Amino acid sequence: MLRDAADLLIAASTDLLGTLVELARAHRHTVMIGRTHGVHAEPTTFGAKVALWALQVDRDRERLRAARSAVSVCKLSGAVGTYSNVDPAVERFVADRLGLVPVPATQVIARDRHAEYLWACAAVGSTMELIAVELRHLQRTEVREVLEGFKPGQKGSSAMPHKRNPISAETISGLSRVLRGNLQAGMQDIALWHERDISHSSVERVVLPDSSLLAHYVMRRGQRLLAGLQVDPARMRANLDSSHGLVYSQGVLLALVHAGLSRDDAYRIVQSAAMRAWDQNTDFRILLEADPAVAGARRGLRPRPFAAQRRRRLRGDRPHAGVISRRDRCRQTSTRMRRRRRHARWRRRCPGGRCTPWPPSRTRLPAR
Amino acid sequence: MLRDAADLLIAASTDLLGTLVELARAHRHTVMIGRTHGVHAEPTTFGAKVALWALQVDRDRERLRAARSAVSVCKLSGAVGTYSNVDPAVERFVADRLGLVPVPATQVIARDRHAEYLWACAAVGSTMELIAVELRHLQRTEVREVLEGFKPGQKGSSAMPHKRNPISAETISGLSRVLRGNLQAGMQDIALWHERDISHSSVERVVLPDSSLLAHYVMRRGQRLLAGLQVDPARMRANLDSSHGLVYSQGVLLALVHAGLSRDDAYRIVQSAAMRAWDQNTDFRILLEADPAVAGARRGLRPRPFAAQRRRRLRGDRPHAGVISRRDRCRQTSTRMRRRRRHARWRRRCPGGRCTPWPPSRTRLPAR
Amino acid sequence: MLRDAADLLIAASTDLLGTLVELARAHRHTVMIGRTHGVHAEPTTFGAKVALWALQVDRDRERLRAARSAVSVCKLSGAVGTYSNVDPAVERFVADRLGLVPVPATQVIARDRHAEYLWACAAVGSTMELIAVELRHLQRTEVREVLEGFKPGQKGSSAMPHKRNPISAETISGLSRVLRGNLQAGMQDIALWHERDISHSSVERVVLPDSSLLAHYVMRRGQRLLAGLQVDPARMRANLDSSHGLVYSQGVLLALVHAGLSRDDAYRIVQSAAMRAWDQNTDFRILLEADPAVAGARRGLRPRPFAAQRRRRLRGDRPHAGVISRRDRCRQTSTRMRRRRRHARWRRRCPGGRCTPWPPSRTRLPAR
Amino acid sequence: MLRDAADLLIAASTDLLGTLVELARAHRHTVMIGRTHGVHAEPTTFGAKVALWALQVDRDRERLRAARSAVSVCKLSGAVGTYSNVDPAVERFVADRLGLVPVPATQVIARDRHAEYLWACAAVGSTMELIAVELRHLQRTEVREVLEGFKPGQKGSSAMPHKRNPISAETISGLSRVLRGNLQAGMQDIALWHERDISHSSVERVVLPDSSLLAHYVMRRGQRLLAGLQVDPARMRANLDSSHGLVYSQGVLLALVHAGLSRDDAYRIVQSAAMRAWDQNTDFRILLEADPAVAGARRGLRPRPFAAQRRRRLRGDRPHAGVISRRDRCRQTSTRMRRRRRHARWRRRCPGGRCTPWPPSRTRLPAR
Repeated sequence: MLRDAADLLIAASTDLLGTLVELARAHRHTVMIGRTHGVHAEPTTFGAKVALWALQVDRDRERLRAARSAVSVCKLSGAVGTYSNVDPAVERFVADRLGLVPVPATQVIARDRHAEYLWACAAVGSTMELIAVELRHLQRTEVREVLEGFKPGQKGSSAMPHKRNPISAETISGLSRVLRGNLQAGMQDIALWHERDISHSSVERVVLPDSSLLAHYVMRRGQRLLAGLQVDPARMRANLDSSHGLVYSQGVLLALVHAGLSRDDAYRIVQSAAMRAWDQNTDFRILLEADPAVAGARRGLRPRPFAAQRRRRLRGDRPHAGVISRRDRCRQTSTRMRRRRRHARWRRRCPGGRCTPWPPSRTRLPAR
Repeated sequence: MLRDAADLLIAASTDLLGTLVELARAHRHTVMIGRTHGVHAEPTTFGAKVALWALQVDRDRERLRAARSAVSVCKLSGAVGTYSNVDPAVERFVADRLGLVPVPATQVIARDRHAEYLWACAAVGSTMELIAVELRHLQRTEVREVLEGFKPGQKGSSAMPHKRNPISAETISGLSRVLRGNLQAGMQDIALWHERDISHSSVERVVLPDSSLLAHYVMRRGQRLLAGLQVDPARMRANLDSSHGLVYSQGVLLALVHAGLSRDDAYRIVQSAAMRAWDQNTDFRILLEADPAVAGARRGLRPRPFAAQRRRRLRGDRPHAGVISRRDRCRQTSTRMRRRRRHARWRRRCPGGRCTPWPPSRTRLPAR
Repeated sequence: MLRDAADLLIAASTDLLGTLVELARAHRHTVMIGRTHGVHAEPTTFGAKVALWALQVDRDRERLRAARSAVSVCKLSGAVGTYSNVDPAVERFVADRLGLVPVPATQVIARDRHAEYLWACAAVGSTMELIAVELRHLQRTEVREVLEGFKPGQKGSSAMPHKRNPISAETISGLSRVLRGNLQAGMQDIALWHERDISHSSVERVVLPDSSLLAHYVMRRGQRLLAGLQVDPARMRANLDSSHGLVYSQGVLLALVHAGLSRDDAYRIVQSAAMRAWDQNTDFRILLEADPAVAGARRGLRPRPFAAQRRRRLRGDRPHAGVISRRDRCRQTSTRMRRRRRHARWRRRCPGGRCTPWPPSRTRLPAR
Repeated sequence: MLRDAADLLIAASTDLLGTLVELARAHRHTVMIGRTHGVHAEPTTFGAKVALWALQVDRDRERLRAARSAVSVCKLSGAVGTYSNVDPAVERFVADRLGLVPVPATQVIARDRHAEYLWACAAVGSTMELIAVELRHLQRTEVREVLEGFKPGQKGSSAMPHKRNPISAETISGLSRVLRGNLQAGMQDIALWHERDISHSSVERVVLPDSSLLAHYVMRRGQRLLAGLQVDPARMRANLDSSHGLVYSQGVLLALVHAGLSRDDAYRIVQSAAMRAWDQNTDFRILLEADPAVAGARRGLRPRPFAAQRRRRLRGDRPHAGVISRRDRCRQTSTRMRRRRRHARWRRRCPGGRCTPWPPSRTRLPAR
C-alpha cells in the first residue's frame, strides 16, 4: 500500500517537474531583480528561479524513489522472524505475487524504512514551502510580479472586495509544517522493543496516510498554482528599475577596483553614492558620475560598461543585458581577447553541462 | 542554576517589554497599511502592531514565570526517593539554603518540569520570530517602511555596497527553529524508565544551556534591534496611498449595502471597480463615482463618509482618519445618536479595559 | 470550540487523577524494588510510583487550565483588528454570549495561544507515555508485577495463544509521539505575516482536532488501564528478594563507614561482595559476614540493623521494613535519641506538608 | 567540510558494521527468547537480532553516502547565482581543486541538501537508539542476558555499590533525541526567501557541527559498547526455559489444527493450558498432555514433534532445535518428502540470497 502511495507521489512529482521545466523555459528571458535578505541585489530571471525549483523537485523525486524501494518489502517469517512455523517458500510466493521484496525481519519490518518514506514526504513538503513562500512574496501588493490564477466570478476576500489572496501558496506553506511534525513522530517509532512492540501502529495509522495525502496534495495543488500562474514581466522590469540603478553597484565597485582604486576606497565611494541615491531619490549613476574620484577612475577605465548596459537595457533590444554583463566587461578590458577565447573553450567543453547553469536554456533541466 | 537562568530570561523579557511599550506609544498615530496574505487590506498603525507584540511578550513572560517555578525545586531523598538513608530534614535544610522547594521524586526530579522550561524558551523564540519576520517584511526594498539601525562606517553586503540587510531579524528567525527542535528533544526525556535512567542527561547537557542562551540572545538582540529601529512614517503613508484607495473597499461595500443594494450586487460593483483600478492604474474612487449604480446609491446615502475620510486624510489634519472611520459612519446614519450614546456608555464603563484594544493609547499595555 | 475541548480534557484529567490517587492509596504498603537504569536499586512502593504520576497529572491539569484560558478568547474587530467597520460593543456582546474574553488582535487571534493548547496536549501525552512505559516494563515476562486487565474470553496474540500483551500501554506510548509532532507543527504557525496569512489554517484543521482527540483518548484509555490493572504484590516481593539482598548494599556501605572504615575501603568490600553474590548466586549477607573486615567492623557496630531488617521482613510483620529502614538505623546509633526528637519535631511541623513526600500516605495528593 | 564530516561518519558506520557482523556471526547459535510486547514469544538467536541491526546500519550507511554526495557541492556564481561578475571557469577551477561538484544556485546552495545530511545523522541516531534500547532491556536485573563491559576497578553507582548500569546505552538513547530535534530545525531552513536570506546560518552553526559530532559519537560509543559486550548464553537459556514451555504454544496450536481440531477449539485449549501454566507454575506440556482433547488429537498426529524438540533441546546436542523446528515438522508429516524437495530446491536457488534470511549464517550480511 505504501508502495502504491509512493507511486502516486512519484507520478505527482514528475508532473510537477514537467510544469516547472515548461515554466522555466518560458521565462528564461524574463529579467527580474534578484533579492537577498529581501533587498534588491542583482538582476536574475524568473526562469532561473523556476529552474532551481525544478532541480530541487528532481532531488525530491530521487528521495521518493529511494523511499519507495525502502518500503516495497514484505515479510512472512513468523512471530519473531525465524520461519519457525512457515516455510520461506511461502514468503517468496506471496512476495512474488505482491511484487515486493521479502526482507529479514523480526515480527515486523524495521521502522527506519517507514521513517525514510516520511522523510521523503517531509522533504517534498519543504520544497513546496520554498516555492510557495517565494510566490507569496512575489504576490504581495508592493511587488505584484506574479498572481495566483483567479477564475472569472471568483470572490476574493469576503470582506474586502479588492483583494486577491495567495490562498493556495499559503495553504501549501502550512501543510509543510504538518509533514515535518509527522516525520518527527515517525522517527520515534524506530526504536521498538525486542522483536516488536505495537507502539508504532497507532502512530502510523495517523501519520502514514496523512503524510501521503498531504505530500500528494501539496504537489498537485502546487502544480495547478504554477500552471495557472500569471507572471507580469512588465512589473518585474519596473521593480528592477525602481531602485535607481543601485543593483549595478557591484559592477561599479569592481570596475573602480579595476581602474586602480583600492577596494576600501571604491567601497566607500559606492556605498556613499548608494545611500544618497536612496535618500535623495536620485539615479545612482548621476551621483557616481558627479564624484570626482569616479570621474578620475573613468579616465583610466574605458568608460562603456555601465553606461552601455544601461543604454542597451533602456533600448530594450537586449532584455537581459544587466544579467550577462560579463560579456560587456570582457570587451572593455585589456584581457579581453584572452577571456573570450577561454569563454569560448568553456562553452565548447560544456554544452549544457552542469557547470553552466546559467541561463536556464543551457542548464540540463531534469527529464520528466 | 535553571532558576537563575529563568531569572535572566524574565529580566530580558521585561526589558524587551519596556522597549516594545515605548515603541507602541511612540507610534500610536503612525498610520500604515494593514496587510493580510501579504496584500493591502485596511489601514492600521505601527503602534497597534507593536502593542500586539508587547501583549504576546507579556504572555511569554508569564510562561517563563511558570517555568521558573516549575524548575525551582530540589530533592535529596536518596537513590529512589524514599529517604531510606537520608532524613527529610536534610533535604529541607538544603532546600532552604538554596531557596528551592523540595519535591517528591524518584532518583531524579520529574522531567516534565524541564520540558516546561524548554517550552517557555521555544515560545519566546517563536514570538521573536513573529517580530523578526514582520521587520524583515517591512524592510524589503519595495516596502522599506522600517530599517535596522546602521552604525556610521558599518559595511552592508561585502559584494554589493548599496545593500543594508536585516541581518539581526534573520538571525532571530533562524534561532527560533533551534529552540523548537530542543523542545522536541526535551519532551522525549519525560518518559524515563522506572526510578530513572540517565538518557535525559546527555540531552539536557546540550539543550538546557543552548535553549537558555538562545532564548536570552534572541530577546536581547531583538530588543537592540527594536530600540535602534528606524521607522519611516512617510514611506508608510506612501505605501498606504499606492493602492489607488482600494483599501477602503470594505467601507464602500458596507455603505452601498446600507444604501439599499443587495450584498451580492454591491460586492460585484466594488470588486469590478477594484480590478479596473489595478489594471488601469486609476483611482478607485473615480471609477466608483462613474458607476451609475453607485451614483444612484449615493443619493439614498448621505454622501459624506468615504469622501470625507479621503478629504480629511488628504488635508493631513487627521492622520488616522482612515482608521477611526467608525466615528464618521456614526455621524452619517440614522442610528447616529443611539450609537453615540452606546459608545459613550461603553467608554465610561471600560476606561482602558480589555475590551477597548484600539487604538493602543487606550489599551492597557503590560506593565514593565 | 477549543474551550469546550479543553473542558473535556480537564475533566478527563480530573478523572484520571482520581483513579491514580485511589491506586496510590491502595498500594502505599505494596513494597517493590525501585530500579534505576533498569537495575535493582533500593526498595520503594508501588504506591509511591503512582503518587508521583498523580502529582505530574496534576501539573498537566494546571497546564490544561492555563491553555484553556489562553484559548477562551474571541475577536470581532474587523479585517485588521482596528474596529474600522464594527463597533467594539458588538464584540463585547458576542463575547458575553459565548462566554469568551475579547482580545486585541490583527485579523486573527495570536497563534501563541493555540500553541500553548498544543503544548498542554503534548505534555499530557508525554506524561501518559511515562506511565505507559512503566506499565510495559512491569508487565514483561521476567518482571510480571502488573498485568493489563484481560476480559474472560478475550484473545491475546492471534498466533501465540499464551500471550497477554500490554496493548493499551503501547498504544498510549505511540500516540504521545503524534502529540509532540503536532506541537512542532503548531508552533510554526506563530510567525504569521503582517496582519495574518492563512498558512496556519490548514495546519490547525489537522492538528487541533487530532491533538484534542488524542490527548483525550490517551487519558481515558490510560485511566481504564489503571482502573483495571492487576497488581501482583507477591511477585513484587519475589523480584525484590531475587537479587540476593544486594539492594541493601547502600545501607551496608553507610553502616561500615559509620563503624569506622574509610568510604573507599567500605566501597571496595561491598562492591566485591556484591559481584560475588551475583556470580556465585549466593546471599549477599553470607558473603559479607564471611569478610573479616566486616566482622571486625561489626564489633564496633551494634550488629542488628541489617539482620533485623531482614528478619522482620521475613517474618512478614513489617511489610515495608526495607523501605523505612531509617527508623532502624536511628535505634542503633549513639545519636538515636537526638534524631528521634528532631524527627518528631519535623513531623509536628509538617503534617502532610510538601516536605514529607514519603510514604504516600503522608503526601498531600492532589485533590480531584 | 560537511563532506569531510560525512567521510568520518561513513568510516564510523563501516567500523560499526564490522563489529556487528562479527557479533552476529559469533552468536548465530546463541538461542534466546524472542519477545514481542516485552512478553516471551518464540525462540530466536542473539545473532539474528544483531544481524538485523547490521542490515539497518548498512541502510544508514547508504543514507550517509547519499547525503555525502548531496553536500559535496559548491558554487561560485555570484551574488544571485548568475555569474554576473565571475566566469564559470573560476567556479570550475575551484571546484576541481576542492573535489566538489559545482551546482546551479542562488546566492547560496539549496538547503534541502543540508537537510538530507541532517536526516542521515538523525537516522543513524535512531538506529543506535534501537540498539541501545535493546541492550538496556537485556541488561535489566530480571533479564541480565548481556552486560556492558566493566573495567576492573571501575565503580558503578556511587551510592549503591552493587550496581552496574548501562550508562553507554542510555547516553546513546538520549542523544538520538537531539539528532531528531536538529533535523527538525534544519528542515525549516529550506524555505529561504528569494535568492537567500541568512536565517539558516545561525541554525546551521549550531546543528551541523552538533549533529555531525553526535552521530559520530553515538556510532563510536555504540561500537565500543558492542565490542566489549558480555553476552551470557546460559542466562539466555535460563530465561527461555523460565516460561514453562509456553513459547511453543504456536507450534502446539498448529499441530492441533493439523490433527483435525478447528482453530477456535485448538486456540481455546492452548490458551487455557497456557494460563494455568502461569497461574499454577506448572509445565505447559504436562497440562497439555493431561487434556483429553489433546490426547485424542495426538493419536491422529504422529506424536514426536513437540516432544522431540524438547528432548533434543534438553540433551543439548542441538542448541537451536526450538528455532529450526520446521525441519522436525517436515519429517513428521505425510507431505514430508514433497516439502523436503521444495526446500532443497529453494536452497539451491538462493544460496545465501535475500530470501533466506535465517539463520544469520545464510544471510548475506553487509560487506564492510
